[in-house]
Amino acid sequence: MITMLHLLAIDAGGTSTRAMLLTGDGTCLGVGRGGRGNPVSDGVDAAAGAIGTAIAGALAHAPDVAAQEVAAVTLAMAGGSIAGGAAAWLRPTLDHLGVVAPSRVEPDLLAMFTSGTHEPDGYALVAGTGSTAVRVRGGEVELTADGLGWLLGDSGSGFWIGHQVARAVALDLDRRGPATTLTPAVLETLGIERVTDHDGDGRPAALGHLVSAVYLASPLRLAALAPLAFADPDDEVAAAIIAEAEVALAQLVLDVASPDLTGPLVVGGGVATQPRVRESVVAAVRAGGISGPVHRVDDGLVGSGVLALRRAGVEVDQPVFARLAETTASRRG
Amino acid sequence: MITMLHLLAIDAGGTSTRAMLLTGDGTCLGVGRGGRGNPVSDGVDAAAGAIGTAIAGALAHAPDVAAQEVAAVTLAMAGGSIAGGAAAWLRPTLDHLGVVAPSRVEPDLLAMFTSGTHEPDGYALVAGTGSTAVRVRGGEVELTADGLGWLLGDSGSGFWIGHQVARAVALDLDRRGPATTLTPAVLETLGIERVTDHDGDGRPAALGHLVSAVYLASPLRLAALAPLAFADPDDEVAAAIIAEAEVALAQLVLDVASPDLTGPLVVGGGVATQPRVRESVVAAVRAGGISGPVHRVDDGLVGSGVLALRRAGVEVDQPVFARLAETTASRRG
Repeated sequence: MITMLHLLAIDAGGTSTRAMLLTGDGTCLGVGRGGRGNPVSDGVDAAAGAIGTAIAGALAHAPDVAAQEVAAVTLAMAGGSIAGGAAAWLRPTLDHLGVVAPSRVEPDLLAMFTSGTHEPDGYALVAGTGSTAVRVRGGEVELTADGLGWLLGDSGSGFWIGHQVARAVALDLDRRGPATTLTPAVLETLGIERVTDHDGDGRPAALGHLVSAVYLASPLRLAALAPLAFADPDDEVAAAIIAEAEVALAQLVLDVASPDLTGPLVVGGGVATQPRVRESVVAAVRAGGISGPVHRVDDGLVGSGVLALRRAGVEVDQPVFARLAETTASRRG
Repeated sequence: MITMLHLLAIDAGGTSTRAMLLTGDGTCLGVGRGGRGNPVSDGVDAAAGAIGTAIAGALAHAPDVAAQEVAAVTLAMAGGSIAGGAAAWLRPTLDHLGVVAPSRVEPDLLAMFTSGTHEPDGYALVAGTGSTAVRVRGGEVELTADGLGWLLGDSGSGFWIGHQVARAVALDLDRRGPATTLTPAVLETLGIERVTDHDGDGRPAALGHLVSAVYLASPLRLAALAPLAFADPDDEVAAAIIAEAEVALAQLVLDVASPDLTGPLVVGGGVATQPRVRESVVAAVRAGGISGPVHRVDDGLVGSGVLALRRAGVEVDQPVFARLAETTASRRG
């Protein structure tokens, strides 16, 4: 009897985690979900717990496959310097689930790229809360740009947009910047009433409440204001913020561009996949010589499966990739 | 027998606190110092302790003046909405020192202004870690601009400059921005060796160390990098950051300018008092119609004394102001 190859592939992110059980022909047998799965930002215990939950969910969809039969565990996650090694901190969780296979960490950006294409070369732009671009060659990340976080980089990201939104509202309320519909939108989001009262320093009471609300929360929470920038297409202040983000994100792709590599370009993340952002970025990088097809992805789950197959020696051609993408979409429901 | 008027004046700041004991003719009898004295950012207990230490130090210089003889306590500090009221949280500390007089909170920006001039009208620009400008009329703050903190405002401040410095170094190390002498300066300041090693993602190891160092510390610590921007006048990246800060600070003054008020302008804070920044800002606001004299101040201590005298009914004319400034300078040594 021929034993079928079974693999576990995990896309562990700072917001949520997804895991899949797949076979050697690229068939996804089940998808499971878990919480925040980044051991650096969330702590090793929390991340291992979230990943364990996701794996258990995936295995539950295929009761006839024993955890012991899984041949390898591929874990796509942020943290470039740890890629290629095993996730030792995940070992107890895997043992507990009965998974005896070794684990291997892969760059999350590579999994985003391989979620969009089976081609070995191209580019990925991921702009959600943060922003990063990579050049992929021969199936490996050749060059990375940004992804340096909200204080040092991530121009054009969700944090960056939300931060600019908050600053524009502060300028408006401080009567030093143009009026903008972002102001009522942000105040409503933060639960601040816009009354005509003034503070002791002659400024609107809402400005003081905005200051209190923003500094009481974690700075990264400003990313939650980013969607407001897309709400009113006629607001010039919001339009200027989005236009600057588009320029920054297009530049990020051009920063990793190589003249001998025209694509494809894979685009992911809540900001980069906004239709107007994607169209603007694509137009700008086309002018910069990236003429290949553009693929939009929601996360790195399919790509983690592609990487799992490749590391197991399976050639992922167009039929295998299509099967994996289709069965994953159907299994994630 | 005529009892001489004795007053306590305190300049309580986010970095340190100064207190003085003065007489009704504007003679400073003693200066004391304490630590961080802002009840909002440092907590009520810590702030009251720092202010108590400063008051005790000031009283110790005039052993023939009993604490009970002090007629009023004037406390200049940040927090516009609490100005004009008593500092109830300071009462136990005052009682403990034997000071029975009532306290009154005054805006720190007003004390900065009255540290530089006894004129009732004019402007103050204070740019240290944060940045704020005020218009003063009739001895009171008429209009305030910015001072909204590092996330919402404070363009051109020490935090803003330090943040831009860190981002420029990240761009340099990520090979996406121009080379700058800020890079070796920042790495040395943070104790990071600039070796030729590369991280797993192909980027310099120093970039990963910069990311770790910056995110492990409080964001506000970036203000400590601001002096590096002034270190090498030939570095174009640093020069561009300072030039942008100068434009922002000049705009801040112009944002509170009124056509019927030509000055004086009082300038304080570690950034605004840098010679090249002060000269650039003054040139810009002169072009905007602020033609009055410019006064540089180190802190709000003299001004807190001016406010104490005024609230006690003393007219602070040029001789009184000069006496207060001279005796304070001599007493603070």
